[in-house]
Amino acid sequence: MLGRMGGPPAEFRPGRWRGALLQSAAMDTPPLILCLGGLDPTGGAGIQADIETLGALGARALTLVTALTAQNTTNIDAILPTPVDFFTRQLEVLLSDIKPNAIKIGLLGSDQLLPPIRRLLANFDGPIVLDPVLRAGGGFETGDQALCQQLREEILPLITLITPNRFEARCLTGEEQHAVAAADLIDAGAAAVLVTGADEATGDSLCNTLYSRGHKPLDFSWPRLAHDYHGSGCTLASACAARLALGDDLPAAVAAAQAHTWHALAQARQIGRGQWLPGRST
Amino acid sequence: MLGRMGGPPAEFRPGRWRGALLQSAAMDTPPLILCLGGLDPTGGAGIQADIETLGALGARALTLVTALTAQNTTNIDAILPTPVDFFTRQLEVLLSDIKPNAIKIGLLGSDQLLPPIRRLLANFDGPIVLDPVLRAGGGFETGDQALCQQLREEILPLITLITPNRFEARCLTGEEQHAVAAADLIDAGAAAVLVTGADEATGDSLCNTLYSRGHKPLDFSWPRLAHDYHGSGCTLASACAARLALGDDLPAAVAAAQAHTWHALAQARQIGRGQWLPGRST
Repeated sequence: MLGRMGGPPAEFRPGRWRGALLQSAAMDTPPLILCLGGLDPTGGAGIQADIETLGALGARALTLVTALTAQNTTNIDAILPTPVDFFTRQLEVLLSDIKPNAIKIGLLGSDQLLPPIRRLLANFDGPIVLDPVLRAGGGFETGDQALCQQLREEILPLITLITPNRFEARCLTGEEQHAVAAADLIDAGAAAVLVTGADEATGDSLCNTLYSRGHKPLDFSWPRLAHDYHGSGCTLASACAARLALGDDLPAAVAAAQAHTWHALAQARQIGRGQWLPGRST
Repeated sequence: MLGRMGGPPAEFRPGRWRGALLQSAAMDTPPLILCLGGLDPTGGAGIQADIETLGALGARALTLVTALTAQNTTNIDAILPTPVDFFTRQLEVLLSDIKPNAIKIGLLGSDQLLPPIRRLLANFDGPIVLDPVLRAGGGFETGDQALCQQLREEILPLITLITPNRFEARCLTGEEQHAVAAADLIDAGAAAVLVTGADEATGDSLCNTLYSRGHKPLDFSWPRLAHDYHGSGCTLASACAARLALGDDLPAAVAAAQAHTWHALAQARQIGRGQWLPGRST
């Protein structure tokens, strides 16, 4: 079923990747992944995608909501960012008691949250995965040019892996070609970039490509599925964070995360009039 | 392992319970449970407990956050209720697209949300489970006497099952004896009451009791577990909602939900300095 082309070449050895092998695969407690993102009442995307994905992969979610959203399966209607003071207090109270093993960032909601998030990341020693959520399936814009610029300058140098789709790769860089966009994101400081292709795929398959500093690009080809899905990017990025925290090296984590996501989408259901929702835990 | 005493007697026949058998057990899509509750960053309680419990039992969560919380495994530090206008908008946008099969209510956060919640429940035809969250494990009060009074008068007559622990049963009724408190809650309009005993258990076992109009009380005895747990009440109430939506009658739903909860607590882990967190999906 899974048409992955081009397995990890020899230079992708375990231990050469920032954030990899953080924990032994034999550890007896699930790794804790701190997830920053939006709350989507449909359960397709955002924090619920993180919780379900991590649970299915043997990790556990800690969650900080960056924004509540009013949305359904057709589009986002409104966003209510979490006030920065309360967000900061949540973070302090949580981290005074619990030490996460990895961080996953989705919807930011507001540029006001960037300073506490930047402080969090700068003091964190583990894998950090960023899914740059810039537009909902129905077209609602969740990030503007100013936010893209701030993400690039302040957050990107701290990131282990960023997972833009092709639209997001263009927004973040201004580059049309995704290979050029990925090189630009790595120049801006990201350790690795997984550019996903589902959002602009047209044929029977789609291609995701992993770019990283000093390594050849790695293509992953997948059979294209029939529907539009809500939360595929969140699922993929959370799965990457889980596998990195479980000790996979980057190419192995990215491959396993894509497999998990593909299967969740293959089990998706339509519960409203719009996009289908991944089947991550049922 | 499971010392349940007193199975459902003959009068607990399927179909005699409001909200039971809503859907065929052979249905091909997971039932959708609309969960109203707080967001707990540790993942032990609140919306995350709902999402994990429902996923494990073959249902699916839709979520509306009543309040964000700053908390860890030792106590709640602060609560930020969702503004009523945004809560109402989230609800309208969601329900314009998706029809839930059951409703589960946890932390209310603010009495300001009672009017839209009451309208939601009054127009809903399916099982409604209420877990009256009035105090955190560390002592933080999440509901006062005025909120208790409003819950009784405005919400209770619309409820299929309310699941107070002994402390909450006393707060809601002013009655010391839980059998008297349960009778009072049924007089106030609840179709059934499951009074849980873990919060005040002292010996090797604990007893939960199901009370309902026209039926004898039904006792369930369980071996007492070793630790203090964060989110046991949320897990139990969500599991009840899932089983009711899947078609169980009330005694069967309550029995299955307790079994799920007991096993989740038996697999709990301590990830911080305080209460242990249920292992619902790992």
